[in-house]
Amino acid sequence: MNKFLRVTFCVCLSITLSIVSVRPAAAQSDPLPSWNDTAAKKNIESFVDRVTKDGGPDFVPPAERIATFDNDGTLWVESPVYTQIAFAFDRIKEMAPQHHEWKTKQPYKGILEDDRKAIAASGEKGLVEITLATSTGITDAEFEKSVSDWMAKSHDQRFNQHYNELIYQPMVELLAYLRSNGFKTFIVSGGEQEFMRPWAEKAYGIPPEQILGSTMKTQFEMRDGQPILMRLPQINFVDDGPGKPVGINEFIGRRPILAFGNSDGDLQMLEWTAAGLGPRLMLLLHHTDSVREYAYDRQSSVGRLDKALDEAIAKGWTVVSMKDDWKKVFAFQP
Amino acid sequence: MNKFLRVTFCVCLSITLSIVSVRPAAAQSDPLPSWNDTAAKKNIESFVDRVTKDGGPDFVPPAERIATFDNDGTLWVESPVYTQIAFAFDRIKEMAPQHHEWKTKQPYKGILEDDRKAIAASGEKGLVEITLATSTGITDAEFEKSVSDWMAKSHDQRFNQHYNELIYQPMVELLAYLRSNGFKTFIVSGGEQEFMRPWAEKAYGIPPEQILGSTMKTQFEMRDGQPILMRLPQINFVDDGPGKPVGINEFIGRRPILAFGNSDGDLQMLEWTAAGLGPRLMLLLHHTDSVREYAYDRQSSVGRLDKALDEAIAKGWTVVSMKDDWKKVFAFQP
Repeated sequence: MNKFLRVTFCVCLSITLSIVSVRPAAAQSDPLPSWNDTAAKKNIESFVDRVTKDGGPDFVPPAERIATFDNDGTLWVESPVYTQIAFAFDRIKEMAPQHHEWKTKQPYKGILEDDRKAIAASGEKGLVEITLATSTGITDAEFEKSVSDWMAKSHDQRFNQHYNELIYQPMVELLAYLRSNGFKTFIVSGGEQEFMRPWAEKAYGIPPEQILGSTMKTQFEMRDGQPILMRLPQINFVDDGPGKPVGINEFIGRRPILAFGNSDGDLQMLEWTAAGLGPRLMLLLHHTDSVREYAYDRQSSVGRLDKALDEAIAKGWTVVSMKDDWKKVFAFQP
Repeated sequence: MNKFLRVTFCVCLSITLSIVSVRPAAAQSDPLPSWNDTAAKKNIESFVDRVTKDGGPDFVPPAERIATFDNDGTLWVESPVYTQIAFAFDRIKEMAPQHHEWKTKQPYKGILEDDRKAIAASGEKGLVEITLATSTGITDAEFEKSVSDWMAKSHDQRFNQHYNELIYQPMVELLAYLRSNGFKTFIVSGGEQEFMRPWAEKAYGIPPEQILGSTMKTQFEMRDGQPILMRLPQINFVDDGPGKPVGINEFIGRRPILAFGNSDGDLQMLEWTAAGLGPRLMLLLHHTDSVREYAYDRQSSVGRLDKALDEAIAKGWTVVSMKDDWKKVFAFQP
């Protein structure tokens, strides 16, 4: 639309609006165009209709329309490794010239030599160690910058996209749809909070104060007369599994009426949501699409979905199949 | 205004608005009527004008208009004892029939016998002990109920008001004024978060997810097949002094552009706010009014204001004198 047409259109619309109350065109188009018209989409729309219907039996006041979303595997890709692990691996390589001792020490040696077997052998303990080594002992502002810099320059190997482009288009639409219906959307992630905040507002439209996740111990200090926040090499809070309802209570102080996860790490968040009074919607994303994304569940070491899948089926929670319920996965796909 | 006049007025206003853009009447009346027209008020108004002036050199986008307020002594009364201590004392008396051992054990014995000397002798350690004894070992929902019940039935001794009415009217106006100018208002209190949330939304218009304070360790558990959050007898986080910038960073993830405190426990929050780029406003409430409220500062055991007062004077932060800058303190006062 050229500028003249746009101005004319706006003026006409303004005049129309001032004469009669019209329903904006946007409300009539499909707010979830990347979703197939399957049961999952209908469950979502019917839930939103019920809780927003003023005077209806299931009406929920806007202030209580809290929706919480896991991040890894729910809003963006978590396979073949969690993105923060990919970040940590790259940081190890970047920092290696200042750490000669890493040449002979696992799991650093394995990372520097791309030796997957050695990395795997270091287990979860090794991953925690490299996370602390690459993200603490610096200020919060320095960490934020290192995340932003890395996000701007790195690409994943399969799709050759920046990691912050590996976000699921149907979920971006769902977040916007909920917000346009008075919901307040939160991220409640097992991943680190400060790893998400530098890019998630732009990606999902969720501001930093609505993003919670695992945290490092942080300390206020004065450096050259200026206050700084130092990230200490110690995990402060693990926002995963039973930690999610604790984090939700601490950060939000209200129980969600809608929660969306994809793995056993989301089970307690879904249980906590389900146990509230009034209408509730619990959703699980099932990765069933090895062509457009990945297919994994009960046996996966990343984002294992086993107990939560059983409970979802038993309790009638909505299981969203990526393959069947989504028209497209990523915005960059045709 | 009766209903007919109201409808007529609304219709006329709508017509007027659809013809020309008029400034609503509310914007022309004083949004801070309980403030005297002194420098403090002018500093606030001028700051708000500068950061909201679109296209001006000091314009701050709404998303970044974060304002943080201490609670005890800044938004409500903290003298002669912090309100949560008054609550704990009453709970000790209420719970005493189930705790015969308290009859002979300090500081419980002192509280049951109103023996101030014995209470004082137990020091901060004693206060922490009674706080844990009266607020943990129960679920979060049970604690919330006990706070709400107590708030509804208890009165302070000097003003004979419910504690949630001992809030400062000028501050309630300031919070609303900031919000009407696109600010997001947060409480950042040394007091316990869960002690504030049950009543603070109604008192200040601040929702639970914007209230942060000190926290107890909390644990997710299943009880009779239902998920609960148990409050464990362990302090999780002290949101005071150097803890305030840490809490702000963790919960909000943005640096405030306005911060308001009243004691040395707010110093680091003010320093952290002041150290940001762009326009900033740091404020301290000075309790100078023994007639309408209390007068205390450098020597007080509650809400001591000493170092922060020196720094405020040295750095030109705005010191609000309760006596000189406020027309009234409480809504219930004439």
